[in-house]
Amino acid sequence: MKPFLSLKSVDEILALLRGFEALPGENVPLDMACGRYLKDDFIAPGDLPGFDRSTVDGWAVHARDVFGASETSPALLSARDGSAMGTAADYVLEEGQAARILTGGMLPRGADCCVMVEHSRDAGGGLLEVVRSSAPGDNVVRHDEDAARGEKLIAAGTRLRAQEIGLLAALGQAAVCVARRPRVAIISTGDEVVPVEATPAPGQVRDVNSHTLAALCREADAEPFFAGLVKDDARMLADTVARALAECDVLLVSGGSSAGMRDFTVDIFTSLPGSSLLAHGAAISPGKPFILARAGGKCLMGLPGHVASALVCARAFLLPLLLGLQGGTPALPRVLRASLSRQISSAQGRRDYIRVCLRREGGGWTAEPLPGRSGVMSGMVRADGFAVCPENREGLYEGEEVDVQLLR
Amino acid sequence: MKPFLSLKSVDEILALLRGFEALPGENVPLDMACGRYLKDDFIAPGDLPGFDRSTVDGWAVHARDVFGASETSPALLSARDGSAMGTAADYVLEEGQAARILTGGMLPRGADCCVMVEHSRDAGGGLLEVVRSSAPGDNVVRHDEDAARGEKLIAAGTRLRAQEIGLLAALGQAAVCVARRPRVAIISTGDEVVPVEATPAPGQVRDVNSHTLAALCREADAEPFFAGLVKDDARMLADTVARALAECDVLLVSGGSSAGMRDFTVDIFTSLPGSSLLAHGAAISPGKPFILARAGGKCLMGLPGHVASALVCARAFLLPLLLGLQGGTPALPRVLRASLSRQISSAQGRRDYIRVCLRREGGGWTAEPLPGRSGVMSGMVRADGFAVCPENREGLYEGEEVDVQLLR
Repeated sequence: MKPFLSLKSVDEILALLRGFEALPGENVPLDMACGRYLKDDFIAPGDLPGFDRSTVDGWAVHARDVFGASETSPALLSARDGSAMGTAADYVLEEGQAARILTGGMLPRGADCCVMVEHSRDAGGGLLEVVRSSAPGDNVVRHDEDAARGEKLIAAGTRLRAQEIGLLAALGQAAVCVARRPRVAIISTGDEVVPVEATPAPGQVRDVNSHTLAALCREADAEPFFAGLVKDDARMLADTVARALAECDVLLVSGGSSAGMRDFTVDIFTSLPGSSLLAHGAAISPGKPFILARAGGKCLMGLPGHVASALVCARAFLLPLLLGLQGGTPALPRVLRASLSRQISSAQGRRDYIRVCLRREGGGWTAEPLPGRSGVMSGMVRADGFAVCPENREGLYEGEEVDVQLLR
Repeated sequence: MKPFLSLKSVDEILALLRGFEALPGENVPLDMACGRYLKDDFIAPGDLPGFDRSTVDGWAVHARDVFGASETSPALLSARDGSAMGTAADYVLEEGQAARILTGGMLPRGADCCVMVEHSRDAGGGLLEVVRSSAPGDNVVRHDEDAARGEKLIAAGTRLRAQEIGLLAALGQAAVCVARRPRVAIISTGDEVVPVEATPAPGQVRDVNSHTLAALCREADAEPFFAGLVKDDARMLADTVARALAECDVLLVSGGSSAGMRDFTVDIFTSLPGSSLLAHGAAISPGKPFILARAGGKCLMGLPGHVASALVCARAFLLPLLLGLQGGTPALPRVLRASLSRQISSAQGRRDYIRVCLRREGGGWTAEPLPGRSGVMSGMVRADGFAVCPENREGLYEGEEVDVQLLR
């Protein structure tokens, strides 16, 4: 008789995953930092833009000199040249003067606003008419408006997007300290499993999990590597695990994670020096025979061999782990609210990840549950996302509104 | 007097962008294909898994032999060995027989379902009791259940996720034909602009747009390269554009896109051999001074120099272009429905991209509009997404429900 697993809830496992420490940081060139997680708070090392800057082509003026100006009652100013673009405005704007300025140009001392060239006209004899009233600060970016020295601009754990890269560039950060990418060793097991390049004989199948898990790691900004495709041989698997563990932060073994006749993974994990078994069995569907262990601060996961189960389990548990190892702040939920097209029954006490495809209907979205067995990948391919049936529910009703987690 | 731009609507520009042809495909190793766009429909080259396969550890049987079996009235079968895992089941299961089988194992001819080992017991003398009724197909993945030869499995234009990679692996595709990544040449302009490594003198600022645009290209699976940081010198800019155009599919010039005193871009684009100007001016905020041109089938874009405007314009126009060049199917919308925390006024006739941050309030999301000027990046950094005020509206109300487009 095969022993029963003692299942932990999804939330219990997520809590265990938070026990793994974040990896150290590393400096990378700014243009390689997009999508990575900032290691430390970024504090402005200076003011940005650092000087008062015009946002228009026109004239730098004293606001009080053009106060109340209009088409019918223009303000008359003495026009003067400004400084060239990209050079300091090293003069003082006197009362009654207007100095030429271009978009992005530096305001001279004395000036407190800019007038658009469209709102001025040449009055001859070095004089300028301004036909619009202005207030201090109009058409000007203040010297510390984008950032003030000492201000916290980007929090540690932020995933750097184009705009963060831009702000770091503006403040001279040609390199930036981000969390090191977790190195993930991937091992597939099974006497019947052959590499993707092979032509399977009857009874054989190609290795799928190595490739889906590697793709998922890349999505999560980690660095996967293939550590072996191993037959159902406890000794060979133990050797492969030990060797791979020296090279990685996270080790994944797919197949052999249950408690059946060729399920060696849990014994191998527990016999590693200093290891502890954190979970064997998760209350999740698909994916129940999940193993979580720790050895020397590294995380070991045993995933089911069934291709869809392995992928769902990895989405549920590996992705949060990889985020945590990078000290990352969770992203906003990527969900679409949709109405279920038919009833789905589930088992109480487990969290069910129901694969659905979405279609636009009327003003909203309809989620169509897909037939999909643990060992079948095509259902995952047709899926736009998961509708989750929580532990305390025995099913979801037709027409019920659910949050569909999008699979990007 | 500076000439007025003649603005095209966002939708008009998007239609023009669809006029650029998709790039040719290239073969890449499967494990490099995640996130790329499939060039052609993928048709199953064979059945998957290719043989009837057990999903459990247990026994392969004839369903009719165990029909009606129960704990109190078990079916009695003659037990026999099966074939080893990963080998063909080259025998026929006779009536009244049960053959050992493991998860993933091949069913012998004659067998039509599997019984879990938990639902059987050894009756001694080579006999087996089965205590649960089964129907044909129970605990079996049929030979063509995951894919049937000739079936269209993945449509051209699909962005390959982990599951598509898995299905391609299962069917032996060690390499896959995906759209070539668009090469994007990035040029920044401005006498006042210095590289990120430099310490700006008063009146100078660092180059931001090169870095934000490169990051955005990477987000969109394109290959950016820096083609130059050019002073406000028409001749130098023309030379740089001509040189870069030979190397790229898309050329971006930020700065100099308006019709002001140092705005050379539009003239340079139109003087290229065989070029045509498709748009100068977009009814978008921020971002109005946008240029779109075509030369020799390549796309040229002039973007505003203002850092936030350049980024919004690039999100609105460059991202759809890069998707189209890769023949990609648009992704499902990444939106969160949120209630606006305060009223926002806009100008009729333009599409306004209002930067908002999101916070959880009660059961829903509240979108807080951020102050943000065209030349300021920190507002973009605080933004979780855009709320869009359409052309036919003069503003959005406090408390109004809006779709916030998430900035990943």
